[in-house]
Amino acid sequence: MPLSLPPLMTYCLGIITSSGFVMAADSRTNAGVDYISTYRKLFDFSNPGERVILLSTAGNLSITQGIISTLEKDLKFHDNQNLHNLESMYDVARYVGGQLRRMQEFDEAWLKKHSIDASCTLLLAGQIKGQDPALFLIYNQGNFIHATKDTPFLQIGETKYGKPILDRTLSFNTQLEAAAKCALLSIDSTMKSNISVGPPINLAMYERDTFVIDNWLRLRLGDPYLAKIRKMWEDSLKQAFEHIPNINWQHREEQSSEDILID
Amino acid sequence: MPLSLPPLMTYCLGIITSSGFVMAADSRTNAGVDYISTYRKLFDFSNPGERVILLSTAGNLSITQGIISTLEKDLKFHDNQNLHNLESMYDVARYVGGQLRRMQEFDEAWLKKHSIDASCTLLLAGQIKGQDPALFLIYNQGNFIHATKDTPFLQIGETKYGKPILDRTLSFNTQLEAAAKCALLSIDSTMKSNISVGPPINLAMYERDTFVIDNWLRLRLGDPYLAKIRKMWEDSLKQAFEHIPNINWQHREEQSSEDILID
Repeated sequence: MPLSLPPLMTYCLGIITSSGFVMAADSRTNAGVDYISTYRKLFDFSNPGERVILLSTAGNLSITQGIISTLEKDLKFHDNQNLHNLESMYDVARYVGGQLRRMQEFDEAWLKKHSIDASCTLLLAGQIKGQDPALFLIYNQGNFIHATKDTPFLQIGETKYGKPILDRTLSFNTQLEAAAKCALLSIDSTMKSNISVGPPINLAMYERDTFVIDNWLRLRLGDPYLAKIRKMWEDSLKQAFEHIPNINWQHREEQSSEDILID
Repeated sequence: MPLSLPPLMTYCLGIITSSGFVMAADSRTNAGVDYISTYRKLFDFSNPGERVILLSTAGNLSITQGIISTLEKDLKFHDNQNLHNLESMYDVARYVGGQLRRMQEFDEAWLKKHSIDASCTLLLAGQIKGQDPALFLIYNQGNFIHATKDTPFLQIGETKYGKPILDRTLSFNTQLEAAAKCALLSIDSTMKSNISVGPPINLAMYERDTFVIDNWLRLRLGDPYLAKIRKMWEDSLKQAFEHIPNINWQHREEQSSEDILID
């Protein structure tokens, strides 16, 4: 795997809508090639009533844990600059990107020596009182982009399997509850198609201007609710599939088979 | 892009079922970074009545065109070994893999000098009279695997976006017409999520023991039939999505929010 790409053994996504945001993450991690395990990848750094901040992580576990630990340490010991006193979500993203860079400075050269991928990516969602909610994707280089009305979701890790359902059902004006459902189905699709993404699933839904994460869910492997949602979605998909008519092979253009299939 | 991975700017898939097989391919190709164009990627080498052979290609266009040209040349000039006289589909796969290796021997070193990815992958489907149909994926190294009853589809190129629908709707016992529909929707999902996969779509369906490709279709950009199928599938998906109940946030385990979201 090239060092410039984040490893794909995880899947997190964030969705921002006109009425709030949703964050979701699986929990499968490989900390070294022979140590595949379960680690939380969605973290709540809110200061209820004043600001909510959710962070999810993909990539090298020692780097992402290091970042989370540093953020926690700053909250406890450093009043000059931390997640609870930065004045805007832009500043928070800049600060988190800076901590990511620091962690890479500590460890990247040593990991590269042994061809270990040190890269990671982060999703950051939050709202500070008096400001709009915002959702960021922080790259391995510490720079970042934010979601917009045109592109209301951001993904990190193994993003492709779960993208079609987002492309087909989501917009900035989607109801928040529907966005949460969409996030769950996007992760479920990914788990179904890629064994390296796995439960528990952590899911959080935030309603704009409430300044508290009221809706959260953790779905373990074998959770009957998760199994039920998956079964319903599969049955609905199958019905949708059956509802599409078979291909009309007579719908040919004027070419012969030879023109069509051989250049 | 690492040289060991095939480029993703294409998507082809093959499906084998108890009653035949389906092959499908998009037509977008980059022949050099600044030359993105349309090239056929599905080729019919059948000898109707005796054997059917379909080949689809992903990867470096000069390499894959070279392979196709060599196969055609052997058919015309070399009676000792060609697609129409090899005695089994295994032998055909071995022979095509050998031609791929020859082409890499010609060009790979020169391409590598300029960091150009020479890799390609192929899908091969066919049936020879008196034998069972078979579907192969031939790797860039010339080795290959074949589809089985447990894994009845194989993909090359940009495979991830279109995999969930295959995972959810296909099995070896799926009706052939349904498999063809599934292939079309899988390509459509990929086109929707990745601009580097594009029409025309070529689609061929083969009914076991008929030894002729009777059903083929070429769908161009803006084809009203393709637009109609896409619209129907999107509407059906949306309905399926709406049919899933909203998330039941009360379905929590005994933990508090803090237990759930912070390690």
